Amino acid sequence: MSAYTKSMQDLIDHFKKMSGIGAKTAERMAFHVLQSPKEEMEKFSRAISNVKEQVKFCKVCGNLSEQDLCGICNDPRRDKSIVCVIEEPKDLILIEKSGHYRGTYHVLFGAISPLDGIGPEDLRIEEFLKRVKENKVKEVILATDSNAEGETTALYLSKELKPFKIKISRIAYGIPVGENFDYINQATLIRAMEGRRPM
Amino acid sequence: MSAYTKSMQDLIDHFKKMSGIGAKTAERMAFHVLQSPKEEMEKFSRAISNVKEQVKFCKVCGNLSEQDLCGICNDPRRDKSIVCVIEEPKDLILIEKSGHYRGTYHVLFGAISPLDGIGPEDLRIEEFLKRVKENKVKEVILATDSNAEGETTALYLSKELKPFKIKISRIAYGIPVGENFDYINQATLIRAMEGRRPM
Repeated sequence: MSAYTKSMQDLIDHFKKMSGIGAKTAERMAFHVLQSPKEEMEKFSRAISNVKEQVKFCKVCGNLSEQDLCGICNDPRRDKSIVCVIEEPKDLILIEKSGHYRGTYHVLFGAISPLDGIGPEDLRIEEFLKRVKENKVKEVILATDSNAEGETTALYLSKELKPFKIKISRIAYGIPVGENFDYINQATLIRAMEGRRPM
Repeated sequence: MSAYTKSMQDLIDHFKKMSGIGAKTAERMAFHVLQSPKEEMEKFSRAISNVKEQVKFCKVCGNLSEQDLCGICNDPRRDKSIVCVIEEPKDLILIEKSGHYRGTYHVLFGAISPLDGIGPEDLRIEEFLKRVKENKVKEVILATDSNAEGETTALYLSKELKPFKIKISRIAYGIPVGENFDYINQATLIRAMEGRRPM
């Protein structure tokens, strides 16, 4: 028998299903719910339903959105001729937080992975090529992950984009800014050397 | 402007309010909600409301309960003549998990703390003394925290309990089992020496 009541144990189990949340954190979160004001927790409960009901994906780029078009695709100040291709909406958030990129995005929702049975047709690649063709895209930045799947996807896209004769680049991999050399892994060092720039 | 949609940002803010949950974890949890099946998240949302609506505190001991009496106070196998006094319901959960204690509990919902303006009358002490008096309690184990507030509370209770002429003990503080001596702080070592037992 659990020492918790049924509804507490149920809530703890929900928290525990989240990646990176262990038993102790899940218990602490359930106690937070138990000890918070009722109105506050009603809002919390509604916030979860709201995300499921209101968050859709932008019809153009796949970004999170509560309308058909996301805030970025709808923003006249963003350069629609530059498209940065990423695997997941969360990658977009990371790039947006850095605050420097003024182009648009295209979310693939994954990467090519033959081992997992994920081919180009399972990703938003057809929509992407159509978008490049129809919207006078001048530059594509491939910002898929640096693992095997991300590299395969970047390679595949660069080949598919060749006929369009547009600028294609791969996001730079190298030594993280502020990082101590001692802690850099070999693969990163090799990429950093390959990507060296004249100065 | 946040890179997230309004409802996503709102959910992230709710997660961030929980102690020990930083910005990154809150974002990861919100993405978990976004990417999980709708029915599953409806259950999660309901689980939060359920805890607020169904979990009450046991009328006798203050433990979490969905009825007037908690599972422990209702269990005929638990020894009602032994009461372990604790500060919070979560302390009870910890002791229960160890699985050895067969008595009952009394949750004070805090500790005496003059600095925070918390006196004996703000805690469930009157109910406790009444319970000891009326229920033929034979033994009280004071398991309040080892900090100043917990110690003050234990001292206060032991004085109040004197007239009843029952067995009163303080939970043992000392070296945690399996812990390396190198990592023990001085206060713990002093308590461990003071609490030494002949063998």
